[in-house]
Amino acid sequence: MLEDLKEQVCQANLDLVKHGLVTLTWGNASGISEDRQHVVIKASGVAYDDMQPRHMVVVDLDGNVVEGQLRPSSDTPTHVLLYSNFKTIGGITHTHSRFATVFAQARLEIPCLGTTHADHFYGAIPVTRPLSEEEVTEAYEVNTGQVIVERFAELAPVAMPAVLVAGHAPFAWGPTVAKSVENAVALEAVAEMALGVRQLVAEPIPLESYVLDKHFLRKHGPDAYYGQTPEK
Amino acid sequence: MLEDLKEQVCQANLDLVKHGLVTLTWGNASGISEDRQHVVIKASGVAYDDMQPRHMVVVDLDGNVVEGQLRPSSDTPTHVLLYSNFKTIGGITHTHSRFATVFAQARLEIPCLGTTHADHFYGAIPVTRPLSEEEVTEAYEVNTGQVIVERFAELAPVAMPAVLVAGHAPFAWGPTVAKSVENAVALEAVAEMALGVRQLVAEPIPLESYVLDKHFLRKHGPDAYYGQTPEK
Amino acid sequence: MLEDLKEQVCQANLDLVKHGLVTLTWGNASGISEDRQHVVIKASGVAYDDMQPRHMVVVDLDGNVVEGQLRPSSDTPTHVLLYSNFKTIGGITHTHSRFATVFAQARLEIPCLGTTHADHFYGAIPVTRPLSEEEVTEAYEVNTGQVIVERFAELAPVAMPAVLVAGHAPFAWGPTVAKSVENAVALEAVAEMALGVRQLVAEPIPLESYVLDKHFLRKHGPDAYYGQTPEK
Amino acid sequence: MLEDLKEQVCQANLDLVKHGLVTLTWGNASGISEDRQHVVIKASGVAYDDMQPRHMVVVDLDGNVVEGQLRPSSDTPTHVLLYSNFKTIGGITHTHSRFATVFAQARLEIPCLGTTHADHFYGAIPVTRPLSEEEVTEAYEVNTGQVIVERFAELAPVAMPAVLVAGHAPFAWGPTVAKSVENAVALEAVAEMALGVRQLVAEPIPLESYVLDKHFLRKHGPDAYYGQTPEK
Repeated sequence: MLEDLKEQVCQANLDLVKHGLVTLTWGNASGISEDRQHVVIKASGVAYDDMQPRHMVVVDLDGNVVEGQLRPSSDTPTHVLLYSNFKTIGGITHTHSRFATVFAQARLEIPCLGTTHADHFYGAIPVTRPLSEEEVTEAYEVNTGQVIVERFAELAPVAMPAVLVAGHAPFAWGPTVAKSVENAVALEAVAEMALGVRQLVAEPIPLESYVLDKHFLRKHGPDAYYGQTPEK
Repeated sequence: MLEDLKEQVCQANLDLVKHGLVTLTWGNASGISEDRQHVVIKASGVAYDDMQPRHMVVVDLDGNVVEGQLRPSSDTPTHVLLYSNFKTIGGITHTHSRFATVFAQARLEIPCLGTTHADHFYGAIPVTRPLSEEEVTEAYEVNTGQVIVERFAELAPVAMPAVLVAGHAPFAWGPTVAKSVENAVALEAVAEMALGVRQLVAEPIPLESYVLDKHFLRKHGPDAYYGQTPEK
Repeated sequence: MLEDLKEQVCQANLDLVKHGLVTLTWGNASGISEDRQHVVIKASGVAYDDMQPRHMVVVDLDGNVVEGQLRPSSDTPTHVLLYSNFKTIGGITHTHSRFATVFAQARLEIPCLGTTHADHFYGAIPVTRPLSEEEVTEAYEVNTGQVIVERFAELAPVAMPAVLVAGHAPFAWGPTVAKSVENAVALEAVAEMALGVRQLVAEPIPLESYVLDKHFLRKHGPDAYYGQTPEK
Repeated sequence: MLEDLKEQVCQANLDLVKHGLVTLTWGNASGISEDRQHVVIKASGVAYDDMQPRHMVVVDLDGNVVEGQLRPSSDTPTHVLLYSNFKTIGGITHTHSRFATVFAQARLEIPCLGTTHADHFYGAIPVTRPLSEEEVTEAYEVNTGQVIVERFAELAPVAMPAVLVAGHAPFAWGPTVAKSVENAVALEAVAEMALGVRQLVAEPIPLESYVLDKHFLRKHGPDAYYGQTPEK
């Protein structure tokens, strides 16, 4: 079932390696079926060298395995919870990419300092609150999703397709699994640059809001004119 | 038309990837025809993996498409305006390369701290002023070119083949599109090194002006003696 | 003799290169036989380009060569001493990987700042005391092992599979030589990220102990549920 | 003439690229003939992509071309002067490698902070004084060699096979051109790590002199026991 989606999700996982976002097996990408009933996700702890679509696991929205011999990624409950709450997203990418994780560990949001950032993220990339001891002990991966959802109470996942989980690492998403990888790549780039800027100036100047509007909307708004086939 | 130039511009765009200056589709290179009537530029948002000369778009100096099925880079108005104002340049490269963009986001010029810099840039690499809200809203890409031209009121594009647009990213240029790529590569290297120097000393010593003269002129002056075929 | 182990150790040494942990010949990996009588280790100063299992040297637990034409790694006495003292480890990796070595040279432990760290190391990665002049002059490589063992007086090698030797570089280990490489890779990643965090915040917040417990134990404890074949 | 040496020098120049020490054409390696009458060096400004032994130029110790169609590297007078003054060296490598150049631009020596450094360099890597205006105007490349020689008045080139030219970049050398590349690689690594240490501690602890002695001499002294064929 969902052979197309398995191929897309497998390719997305391999692209994480190609883009240098993954060390060892620290990363996973998933996609949701069009009817939003099933999620395809990488198996847990599997090496990337020989990954095939058949190593993808199909789960339902409660995280139960529907198809596949392998155990799904240990982060599956987080993915599933995000799909349940963010109805507009079609794919999720989780990595421990170096610079985004630096900000997650520093528990600092990534300020919007330039147009590279504004092209992908409509404002500062948020960081969650730390999980409580109870949240960690009882249902850690589900609650990781919960603190993300909580952090997005007043944020739109479409306009802000990434988050940093405090003390952990980033999650990114998008309309498709391929787009979620793209946002994870962009996130890592803007994190690296923001760290560099902080080494030059203690209090960097945030990008002017009218430039943020311009850049985000020329790529993502109804009047987008970047690329060949603007997103709807 | 302009098949040779299309090949050169395509190759230049691919070289951006080879030199590690481009993430995703963030970058574009262009060249102007010998009669300075037409500009060949990369199509907007096209992936580099499979780029061919036929993906290049020909525009006139008003930015109108003259040949090509695809939409030209969204930065085309900036390129065209620079060609109109800088009569000595034959190629332009725009990237969001990491370290040059760090300085652009920090809104700091890159001081000349060594001979690597002096071999390519005759002094500190300038940064533009930020665009006003009106400039961004009305004709953003044209005005991006305008603030560059404004910044070069007292600078010669031949002696200073690069600029940082505040809060955005670098543009580099040269007598040919290939040379503009080379200058973009050099820019990224000197930006990375300048950041490193700033981590060691708060107030780095600028390169002595007589060393700057020596290095820039041995490569670019009438008595150049670097390389096999010195530029005129 | 020990042909299987030679292949594993050879592969582990080559994997160090693949993971970017080795410059020139600065690194070596070894494995111990199941009966813990013999250690297989890379020959000293041999280039990686053409490394074969037959370049591995077999030594006994006193460091005497039992089989092999080549001189074993100059760090052999350190490896052998660690195997004698840490009865639960099956493989050792020594590198001068950039960021782990930065912390070793700074003589600072690597604090646990995030889950990437907690997935592999159960607490801050310790640094040894410097060796005394006598220790260096008399039996340098043996005493390098001794200060590591001394530092682990109250630490379990299974829970903390790495150490920084002050002014020198890291050693990592694991149940197999392949796992020791994996821990060396993880060590380098967490070192790079910890350096980044320190550039953002002077006093980073250590990971909450209950998150450390959760992450380390979900991968390594009796109830591990990460990956397909949890370690015992 | 000197076909063997041409091959070695060509290979050394290509190895600079392989080790990531060279951007564009910024780097050159040379070797001296056994009778110390001729120097083989890379041609000036030639691309590395298609470099062949026949692109090497033979010059005498006054820097005059003896064989070869191409202009030799513009740094030839510096190389030749070093060979004339440092009688024990057989090869020289000049690069603008990132981190070594950062220290050269900061005009700071690279302190010996660890054994990686001690394995190759017997103490802090020195930096020259800046050249005077007269020195730059009259015979720049010769005088670049002169300030290096001046800086080595009380240093032995065998024990300290590298130098930083203030505001410029590093030179490294060795008994052969291949060894000079190796030292350039080591130099870049220790520079990168020293910069990292400085980001963690303002005043790093220099490596104890008895460890420096131990490491340098176990690789380079008469009783060397590192590698398979210790240097004499």
